[in-house]
Amino acid sequence: MAGQCPWKQLILSALESNAHVKHSSYFQMATIGYNGRPSNRTVVFRGFEENNDKIQINTDSRTRKIDELKHCPFAEICWYFTDSWEQFRITGKVDVIDSSNSDPAKLQQREKSWFASSVRSRLQYLGPNPGLPCLSDKSPHELTLDPSSGPVATFCLLLLDPDQVDYLNLKADKRIMFALKQSADGEMHWYEERINP
Amino acid sequence: MAGQCPWKQLILSALESNAHVKHSSYFQMATIGYNGRPSNRTVVFRGFEENNDKIQINTDSRTRKIDELKHCPFAEICWYFTDSWEQFRITGKVDVIDSSNSDPAKLQQREKSWFASSVRSRLQYLGPNPGLPCLSDKSPHELTLDPSSGPVATFCLLLLDPDQVDYLNLKADKRIMFALKQSADGEMHWYEERINP
Repeated sequence: MAGQCPWKQLILSALESNAHVKHSSYFQMATIGYNGRPSNRTVVFRGFEENNDKIQINTDSRTRKIDELKHCPFAEICWYFTDSWEQFRITGKVDVIDSSNSDPAKLQQREKSWFASSVRSRLQYLGPNPGLPCLSDKSPHELTLDPSSGPVATFCLLLLDPDQVDYLNLKADKRIMFALKQSADGEMHWYEERINP
Repeated sequence: MAGQCPWKQLILSALESNAHVKHSSYFQMATIGYNGRPSNRTVVFRGFEENNDKIQINTDSRTRKIDELKHCPFAEICWYFTDSWEQFRITGKVDVIDSSNSDPAKLQQREKSWFASSVRSRLQYLGPNPGLPCLSDKSPHELTLDPSSGPVATFCLLLLDPDQVDYLNLKADKRIMFALKQSADGEMHWYEERINP
């Protein structure tokens, strides 16, 4: 698998060399918003899906990005590592896995992601509807949650399946474009090319 | 002007409290790419335009975002301040000011932005075409430039004119939506509303 996905090791190395900065797992995800305008927000990297290169993100099903992704399932992640000066622009299709998903394997994955996040993170999903007018100052910290109970209805797992990765290393002044393409044998393969920064 | 643009002071304060981190002037700008897919990259904040709240960004006219912006002029900036845990999502229309611009005032502004950037930054615009296959290992550092000469043809100034700012403060667990709207008197005014984080 490593040979088929040559950019994954670059991300893992960047995560390692930036591990001391809390925000190294944060990146910006762009989608197509209402009116066809771009939409962009910070989200948290929740690891790669087991045994492949899909990127996991947790989100609230009540946020605008869910409707946006249902309308246009493509996203571009821009992940800048502030210490190593590396940027990854990762394009791909996003699978939205919410409580209504009909695939038991996907629901299991969603549950796994729920338990992998901290109880504090999970509490956010019990809060008031994100983006709606704020009616009270009640903090979600006043809410309580049984740590053993499964995902709440608003918890949603996003899986981004990359088909292009534009890697830029500002310290080395080097840029590589990775693209998933069909080869002569009909199989999908990752191709890479050095391009100008 | 300050009363008309209530979010600007929040950005100036965030810049001040994050001034010790080099990357505090970096943000991610999303545009609509080819095939209608989102496109996202890190760019550098070059200040507000004098006497107003337009955001200045320098870029190379040969990059893909220029074609994208000519096709769809809207962008959303996602600016996350890693030390103060504040996020600004800034939506607006982008004015692309390149060497072919017919407005002398805009060309003057472009020239001003050229001289405001370091000679090292300016050298990038003399390098090979960004995004094209890399044919040589020649570094742009081997190029030279007369510090007194004006902007080269590839130098481009972008001016983003905000019409919505979604401000999130993660430490205070507080979110405010600022939107530019026409009021009863026919004038455009900034309105703000506390919304759920």
